[in-house]
Parts: sequence; C-alpha cells; structure tokens
Amino acid sequence: MTNIIHSIQRALIVAGVHGNELNGIYALKKFVQHPDLIRRNSFETLTLLANPKAFAAVRRYIDQDLNRSFRKSDLQDLTRSSYEDIRAKEINYLFGANGKTPVDVILDIHSTTANMGLTVITNDRPFNLQLVAYLQSLKPAVNIYILPKSKESSSLPSICEFGCTIEVGAVAQGVLQADCFQQTEALIINALNYLEKYNRGEILPFDNSLTIYRHLGTIDYPKNESGELQAMIHPQLQFQDYQPLAPGQPMFLTFDGQTITYEGELTVYPVFINEAAYYEKGIAMCLTQKQLIHNYQLSD
Amino acid sequence: MTNIIHSIQRALIVAGVHGNELNGIYALKKFVQHPDLIRRNSFETLTLLANPKAFAAVRRYIDQDLNRSFRKSDLQDLTRSSYEDIRAKEINYLFGANGKTPVDVILDIHSTTANMGLTVITNDRPFNLQLVAYLQSLKPAVNIYILPKSKESSSLPSICEFGCTIEVGAVAQGVLQADCFQQTEALIINALNYLEKYNRGEILPFDNSLTIYRHLGTIDYPKNESGELQAMIHPQLQFQDYQPLAPGQPMFLTFDGQTITYEGELTVYPVFINEAAYYEKGIAMCLTQKQLIHNYQLSD
Repeated sequence: MTNIIHSIQRALIVAGVHGNELNGIYALKKFVQHPDLIRRNSFETLTLLANPKAFAAVRRYIDQDLNRSFRKSDLQDLTRSSYEDIRAKEINYLFGANGKTPVDVILDIHSTTANMGLTVITNDRPFNLQLVAYLQSLKPAVNIYILPKSKESSSLPSICEFGCTIEVGAVAQGVLQADCFQQTEALIINALNYLEKYNRGEILPFDNSLTIYRHLGTIDYPKNESGELQAMIHPQLQFQDYQPLAPGQPMFLTFDGQTITYEGELTVYPVFINEAAYYEKGIAMCLTQKQLIHNYQLSD
Repeated sequence: MTNIIHSIQRALIVAGVHGNELNGIYALKKFVQHPDLIRRNSFETLTLLANPKAFAAVRRYIDQDLNRSFRKSDLQDLTRSSYEDIRAKEINYLFGANGKTPVDVILDIHSTTANMGLTVITNDRPFNLQLVAYLQSLKPAVNIYILPKSKESSSLPSICEFGCTIEVGAVAQGVLQADCFQQTEALIINALNYLEKYNRGEILPFDNSLTIYRHLGTIDYPKNESGELQAMIHPQLQFQDYQPLAPGQPMFLTFDGQTITYEGELTVYPVFINEAAYYEKGIAMCLTQKQLIHNYQLSD
C-alpha cells in the first residue's frame, strides 16, 4: 500500500452506485455527452454508471447494496452471485489494481436525504487530504468527512487507494434537484483540475489549517424488542448535520412526544442524520469529532 | 350518487397506500396502539395499512401503483392478479359501497417530496368542501387542492363518496420526519372531531370565503425522442408549490444551463413540483388555478 502517487494515469468518475441517487447519474450522463468537460492532458478520465439495473428501477439496489459488495473475500468468492455481487466483480476486474484498466483515483458521486450540503468523504491518506483541501479552498462550504480506512473496506472506492466520495444533500431519493446537480458537476470539474495540477507538479503544500469531521461511530434509532422504531429524529436535530450536539441536547422524539437526549460525554457533530437508506442498516446518524489539522504533509 | 350524508356510521383512516411514505404509516401505528385517540361516540373508526408488502420493502408499490388500481372495471376483472390488483379488490370488498363494512368517509394519508406543506385533496362535493374548510379554519396553513371527480376514479378514496387525501411535505421517501408526523396526526384528529360534530348537528354553515387550488392539468419534464430527461425543475421553481407562476417565468433548467420558461397564457399555481414518484408518470408538476369560493353551501 502506497501513500503517494508519482503520476496519475487514469481517473474514474463513478455515479449510480445507488440507482435512486439521480443527481450524480445525470452529471455523469452530461460528462459522457460532453467529454471535453472531463478530458485533461496528463491523464485519462473514465466514467462508470455503476448500477444500471438499479437506476432503471430507480432503487438503491436490486439484491444488495453495491457499495457494501467490495470486500476482498467476497470478490474472490465464486458462490456469490447476486446482481450486485456480479457487478462488483466486473467493476473490480475492469478498474481494480489487477484489472484491465486499473485506475489511480476514483471520484464516486452520491447524494443523501441528510442536510450535508456538499460533502467530500475520504480517509486521511495525505494525497486524499490534499485533494479535499483543494476542493474546500475553492468552495469553503465543502465539508470534509474523514472515515477510518477500515470503514471503507466493502465500498466501491476501496478498490483504489486514492480519491473521494462526494455526497450532496438534502435531496430526496429519486429526485433531480438543479442546485445539487450543479454543485456536483462543479466539484468533479475542480477535482479533475486538481489531478491535472498534481501531475504537472503545480500543487503547492497547503500551509492553512483544515477543518475536518472525523468519524466516531453510529447511533441507531430507539427500537423495541421486535425491532420496530420507537422514535424519530428530534425536530431540533433534523437537518442539523455538522452542528454541535452537546450532552443533554434532544436527539430523538418518541411517537408519544417524549424527548430522548444525547447522553454521551463529549460534544459531537452528527452527519447523515435521518438518511433514508440507513434505516435498514440501523443508523439514525453518524457521530463525528470536529478537528483542525495544521500543516499536514503530502507524504507521511 | 349522493352529495350529502345524513349520518356517518363508519370512517376509515388509511395509510401506507404507498409503502415508502412513512409518516402516515407511523401515525396509523400510533392510532392502532392508542385507539382512544380515534374513538368517537357517534361513529366507528376503522384503520387500514393499505400496502403492507410495499411498506416492508420500503417501496411505493410491489407491482403497480395501488392508488391507480381502483377503476371499477379493473376491480371486476378476474384476470388482473398483480399484488396491488388483489389488494385493491380486498380493500373494496371490505370497505366499498357493497362491501362487508362499507365506510362513509375515508381519510387517506400520504406524503410528498414536493413542498406542499399540509395539503388536503378532495373534490368539490359540498360535504368534502365543508370538511376541508373546517380543517383550514383550525389551521390556516392547510392548503386545499381540488381535483375534478374524474381524476379520482382509480384511486383508493374513489370507493367512497366522502373524505379527503392528506399530503404532507417536503419529505423524502423512506424518511420519518417528526414535524410531518405531528402535523399528520393533528389533522386526522381534527377531521374525526369534525365528523363527530357533523353527526351531532353542530356544524354551522361557513360564511367565510375559502381559498382553493383547482387542478388544471399536468406538465411533463422536457424529454428527447428516447424519453430521456433533458431538463430539471428550475431552481427558482423548486419548492415553490402554491406560488404564482406567470407566463415567461423560469420552469425548467437544461443540463447545459438553459432556462425554459412557462409559456402558458395565464398565471398558474403549480403543486407536486418535482414529486419523486411522478417521474414515471410523466408529471413534473400539476398546474392549478387559485380560486376564492364564497358562501358555498352544504348541499348542491
């Protein structure tokens, strides 16, 4: 595993890992129709509509979540044959490290029903931090959400060391929303510009500090013994992604109107609050820690 | 067909006609657990989770839209046997005019990704207008959307002369949102209170004027010859349900950033703007005419 890239040969723009996240899919369609938008001199840009069958059905997935189908052991397991299992193997065969046209960087476009604005999700590999820092320097409203490397092991971007996942929201599943479409498009253009500058050696070390939100863990909805929901996200917390949540503040509201407060010891910054697709995963929100990184380096 | 009811014997609260519209479903679950909330002295209140299989799958429907499955000819067609066809026949057999426990009034709870706030949809039968006028008198923010009777012919409420459909939004599919849940619950309680007052002869004729939005027609997204979307709802129109749209104002935005304006002759009031479930129906929005009704009567 390397932490730096000497030169980017090939970048992959992915959309439609989830078939009902339309804004990224239509941004990708635009790029395919206007390849000049994503063509750069120093590297090749590829595109992938990851789950076309789910897109046709306007559903997140057909048999299982494609973005949880890339565990190395699963990719090698010949008995796994759901639609998404097969699709994951195909994608890995094409673009993975030992694939036909291995890619150096993946930009994977998603959307969320949570109010996460424009978010880039990555790990703290220095190349990736530099990339997202650049994106934030052009658009300060971009939020940076850092996952531990272990959390990514079954996701599509895990087949490649470098890149980031883009989330935009709040937007409903199955809805094209012009502001989200435009923000996504602009972010991809900026990311490709970054890769071009990187290849040309034009990236200056950032000496600014960088605000990141580091993943701590997840919180499930209150449920009864049968697994039925007993409460909703509290109205005071709904759409408050990236805002501080202090011990004692409202977190959930039961159907009878009782408030359930956050009982942790530290102030946290919830994200993915009330994401529609996470009910089935037992996630009401992800908790993060807000951090300031100073003088981070290109190599570690 | 009658336009008045002498006495309400039985009212039916329906939720989950669409399995991914969670707020109504959880309001219904609460009513089932706390029957005192919906029990009234002068009539019987029944409840129905209309599409349990779609709810379990968190999808609008399994095979076809249940709320388009109630055409009289379809209900009598023995060859129709999709999940929703069978379900529609069961529901009609239970609650329809010639059913086992026919109901006099249906309150059918939905939600929408459009920014329609709290909306009641009905036709202009005097009983229904009185009901929704009462609901608006208690909560002035309630919007009244009037459909021609012909538009309802395949919907679940078409099996009954009286009642209304409740829409709340904007809320994403598959998401419980506390404010929407609470608004829905309160509206149902108020509607049941109205029915109780009606049976007791306590309803006074309203002499106030009433603002309604009358359905005019629908507009599809711009598409190419293959049926592919060529534009999105314009950002200036997104979430502007019930606001005036004048000729020449922006309606759509192409993926290349070109504005498409509204070219009708009259100012209209769009609703169901960018409803996720209506993409497949070829509906980008419904157009309505805003009207003031004066001195409407209980019988016509």
